[in-house]
Amino acid sequence: MSTQPARGMRDFLPEELRRRDYVVGVVRDVYERYGFEPLETPAVENIDTLLGKYGEEGNKLIFKILKRGEHESSGQADLALRYDLTVPLARVVAEYQATLPKFFKRYQIQPVWRADRPARGRFREFYQCDIDIVGSTSLIVEAELCAAVGDVLTRLGFQDFTIRINHRAVLTATLECAGVPPGLQADALIALDKLDKIGPGGVLQELATRGIEAAVAAKCLSIFGEANSEETATRIEQAAKFVSGHQMGQQSVAQLRDLFRLLDGTRVGDRIRFDPSLARGLSYYTGAIMEINVPDLAGSLGGGGRYDNLIGMFLGRDVPACGFSLGLERILVVMGERNMFPESVVGAPSDVMVTLWNEGTCADALALAATLRADGLRVDVYPEVDKIGKQFKYASSRGVPFVAVMGDDERARHEVTIKNMRTGEQQSLRPDEVSVLIKRALGS
Amino acid sequence: MSTQPARGMRDFLPEELRRRDYVVGVVRDVYERYGFEPLETPAVENIDTLLGKYGEEGNKLIFKILKRGEHESSGQADLALRYDLTVPLARVVAEYQATLPKFFKRYQIQPVWRADRPARGRFREFYQCDIDIVGSTSLIVEAELCAAVGDVLTRLGFQDFTIRINHRAVLTATLECAGVPPGLQADALIALDKLDKIGPGGVLQELATRGIEAAVAAKCLSIFGEANSEETATRIEQAAKFVSGHQMGQQSVAQLRDLFRLLDGTRVGDRIRFDPSLARGLSYYTGAIMEINVPDLAGSLGGGGRYDNLIGMFLGRDVPACGFSLGLERILVVMGERNMFPESVVGAPSDVMVTLWNEGTCADALALAATLRADGLRVDVYPEVDKIGKQFKYASSRGVPFVAVMGDDERARHEVTIKNMRTGEQQSLRPDEVSVLIKRALGS
Repeated sequence: MSTQPARGMRDFLPEELRRRDYVVGVVRDVYERYGFEPLETPAVENIDTLLGKYGEEGNKLIFKILKRGEHESSGQADLALRYDLTVPLARVVAEYQATLPKFFKRYQIQPVWRADRPARGRFREFYQCDIDIVGSTSLIVEAELCAAVGDVLTRLGFQDFTIRINHRAVLTATLECAGVPPGLQADALIALDKLDKIGPGGVLQELATRGIEAAVAAKCLSIFGEANSEETATRIEQAAKFVSGHQMGQQSVAQLRDLFRLLDGTRVGDRIRFDPSLARGLSYYTGAIMEINVPDLAGSLGGGGRYDNLIGMFLGRDVPACGFSLGLERILVVMGERNMFPESVVGAPSDVMVTLWNEGTCADALALAATLRADGLRVDVYPEVDKIGKQFKYASSRGVPFVAVMGDDERARHEVTIKNMRTGEQQSLRPDEVSVLIKRALGS
Repeated sequence: MSTQPARGMRDFLPEELRRRDYVVGVVRDVYERYGFEPLETPAVENIDTLLGKYGEEGNKLIFKILKRGEHESSGQADLALRYDLTVPLARVVAEYQATLPKFFKRYQIQPVWRADRPARGRFREFYQCDIDIVGSTSLIVEAELCAAVGDVLTRLGFQDFTIRINHRAVLTATLECAGVPPGLQADALIALDKLDKIGPGGVLQELATRGIEAAVAAKCLSIFGEANSEETATRIEQAAKFVSGHQMGQQSVAQLRDLFRLLDGTRVGDRIRFDPSLARGLSYYTGAIMEINVPDLAGSLGGGGRYDNLIGMFLGRDVPACGFSLGLERILVVMGERNMFPESVVGAPSDVMVTLWNEGTCADALALAATLRADGLRVDVYPEVDKIGKQFKYASSRGVPFVAVMGDDERARHEVTIKNMRTGEQQSLRPDEVSVLIKRALGS
């Protein structure tokens, strides 16, 4: 029988899990500072809650759970595994509308399951890491989300990220003003999205292939592409000029201006870019859209936007909402490649290992461990009486920085010998002096 | 469409989740101090990994996942939801045997799913919270586990718990020495287990009903029940005397003596009780068994023991192991009934709420929020420009202890007005003085 995890799923062994927990810990801490509250929903939902919410393709990727007992043989499913964190949020907003605050700011960091074909970096169980503010159409919401995710990345040590921002309605207005017929706007965006990869010439060619006239294609490129090097303020004015005859376009550009002004005084002010070509799939966004990127990753580290028509799906009325989803798996990949994890995260599983000298000293060894733990140290105890050299070797193989020995001599003097495994130094001292020594050496 | 969570599953709204996260945080912190390392396995396992591991009853309670795509209509299942954390541990031990340390000390805190009939306190999705030490038969292992779970409860504020300890082989030897035939030993234990509920008379009667002779029943009661009030040391000697003619019994009593001696110097020394009637289901334990209880809960807060024949199930050879599982859900219930949660856990979702005076002051309000967050405060920003009274009312309804106002007057003076929502006091001060004031008032 295979002992591998199921296809597309992963076991997280301690070393990797510590890295994940570190990132999740930073995310939670920052989100709490922004007044977001934690939410968790069950892994399993009634199947009707999920079916039909993710399009035909999504439906196929939902893991369905067989009915139980006498109904099992029917082959029918009545439950399913959570596919994202947005539909459960919509369900929660409907179910607890009477008790939730008027502005519901929640973060949710939980796994979701999709029966996708596994590939490099694509898993069937993966964590989503969402924040959403439900209940307000104010741009303060967008500004707070951008500031929060920016703070997360800064705290994690990213110094080169940009938050690209666009607006769904500015996008539509721009395409309309450029003369792209409504039926070809999605096509135009797909082509324009490839600017980085295939260059202006390639994009013009693809626009032509997709049936967009040469003059219209050139116009698109002028607003979406060629101004790429300009400052955000300049680009905003270019966009404003371009859509000046378009009422909805004008209003939305004004919104973006307000948003950039709001973000100026926050700590992400200099990270913000207006990117008129940012599209983010388009489907359910209704206002501002955002994406976070770093230079050495082709995809994004996260994205989001305003979606005012979705969270009310179970309530039967529109509920304004704006959210951002951080790509935990991608953040971990980039941080790993760049060696961004602090020493305490990638380091040893314990600060000191207590050895066992002989059967008669075991109780004293456990008492010493208890003292050191009470002082806040992470203490391993070698579990068996064995040759002392073997015990040291084990500590060394585990990377434990200090080893404590209480042999018969030490016990007679009421002392402990502490060996610094990195320097080789040994020192005998009273048990109550040990943690001070180790903490000082570890710089904690 | 229903917006309730699926039957037997729970949504955790912020207030409750903060309590759960607090307990889990303490558990993790203590376990890390004992040198345990975190492990996570997928929610979904190959169905063959789980089937046949939990007996016939268990098999029925496993949530099975339907095959996907063209195979969906076959009604067959190829995957299933994790039923406990022990079988996944056994799989991990087999799969990564080459890389895991010789003594694998792991903790795992993850949900499991069982299609049980939901009842008060019984859910279909619930968290298990396990520690296990794999790879050693030494009693140091049992001692470390008892010390660790005791430290968890102490850190959570429990001052009245006891850790009852028995030994599988002492139990068998005692029953044999009392003259209970092997085929009736399980029956005898079921009856003896009810001593607290039905008293000595009831137990004698039930032993008789289950076919155990009166003289044998009386012997059982003398060793299992009547000595209940005695000290552990006395009870151990009674047990030793009772099984003195039984070789395995003698050896196991000697093990218990060693274990109690090891625990003496730890911080749970005075919590340990020898309980000769403790059985814990018997099925897969091979050595010491433990259980933690508090007076005001009928069941236990957790339990465990040594099981040397289970973890090797996928390896095809015995691997020694000893573990303990804390009952997270029960701990939460008792802590809730006793009001044991610290103020910071049950308190407000943020330390201060920044109000918005008018459209022109929003950017300054966000900048103020950024400053306070950088100082470590949890800061909410009211997201809409609205009547100031309404904003104060919202802060009050959310229990936020401080509200910040930057009106036109304050801005002209480069100041902020801070209102203490509990005392009603107001104070104007420079933005960089605000966090000192709030932190001092919150005592953090």
